[in-house]
Amino acid sequence: MDFKSIIRDIPNFPQQGIIFRDITPLLAHPHGLTSIIQGFQTKFVELNIGEVDAVIGIESRGFILGAALAMSLGASFVPVRKPKKLPSAVYRVEYSLEYGTDTLEIHQDALAKGERVVIIDDVIATGGTAAATAKLVQQTGAELLAYGFLIELDFLNGRKALPEVPIVSLVNY
Amino acid sequence: MDFKSIIRDIPNFPQQGIIFRDITPLLAHPHGLTSIIQGFQTKFVELNIGEVDAVIGIESRGFILGAALAMSLGASFVPVRKPKKLPSAVYRVEYSLEYGTDTLEIHQDALAKGERVVIIDDVIATGGTAAATAKLVQQTGAELLAYGFLIELDFLNGRKALPEVPIVSLVNY
Repeated sequence: MDFKSIIRDIPNFPQQGIIFRDITPLLAHPHGLTSIIQGFQTKFVELNIGEVDAVIGIESRGFILGAALAMSLGASFVPVRKPKKLPSAVYRVEYSLEYGTDTLEIHQDALAKGERVVIIDDVIATGGTAAATAKLVQQTGAELLAYGFLIELDFLNGRKALPEVPIVSLVNY
Repeated sequence: MDFKSIIRDIPNFPQQGIIFRDITPLLAHPHGLTSIIQGFQTKFVELNIGEVDAVIGIESRGFILGAALAMSLGASFVPVRKPKKLPSAVYRVEYSLEYGTDTLEIHQDALAKGERVVIIDDVIATGGTAAATAKLVQQTGAELLAYGFLIELDFLNGRKALPEVPIVSLVNY
């Protein structure tokens, strides 16, 4: 499936000068979600990452792709969320944005030590969110096997911000 | 699987006097997500709702369950989101909360006329969100077959707010 031809470009969203890559037409396609998940699984097998115990989805489009992958793998699903959304004890990481900072949280008991996990999100841009999520995973003692992104914005070079694990992306701009 | 024994009760979250039903331990269970989705599918088959073209997930825990169900059914996935998140032309519905109002949106082209859909969310409380989502589906011309909720708070009687389609819930309080 030619993902790029179905992803919709929205100029100047959410702000002037940004081209937003809208994945909703791909998710609405009858074979969109299954093709994305097959894409992740095929690449993870090629990279020989081994058995995945848990899929981490980053709020909120990462929930969509992460939960679908967890379902397909028969793995558990763990959400990484914006502050004040998770109700029990959390690990918290603050990270820099272009202007200001942002914060992500994970439940402290969401993952067991040594549990084998992948982190899923829709897009990797500067890599700040994905790098912060790896720090949360590290605090739980789980083992990060790989990242999976539907879209990678190559010109922002977000890979450089991430720890040294395999990084899968299915569409590149 | 005894869902209720794995769902975690958090008293006084997000505010005093509320018992929050935390589904994250169930999602983190190795068979949690697959058992929930099997639960939905079994009940939908029993209710004879027929072929499902698209699953609507309500932001943001509805994304997790909705996307997993869409994956399992081989259906498409359509997000219903809070305002200003969807980048293209939307239908919008405003609905009343206990104090104030809230708004939900769907992309105008997310569903085709006559497309057969189910609406999925983690919890039905007063039913306001779920009823508003049905109104959005109606605006697209799609056909609502059923609702699926992991949790139903019986004492709030949210069912009464919903249109007359089958309503599945897997855990009742």
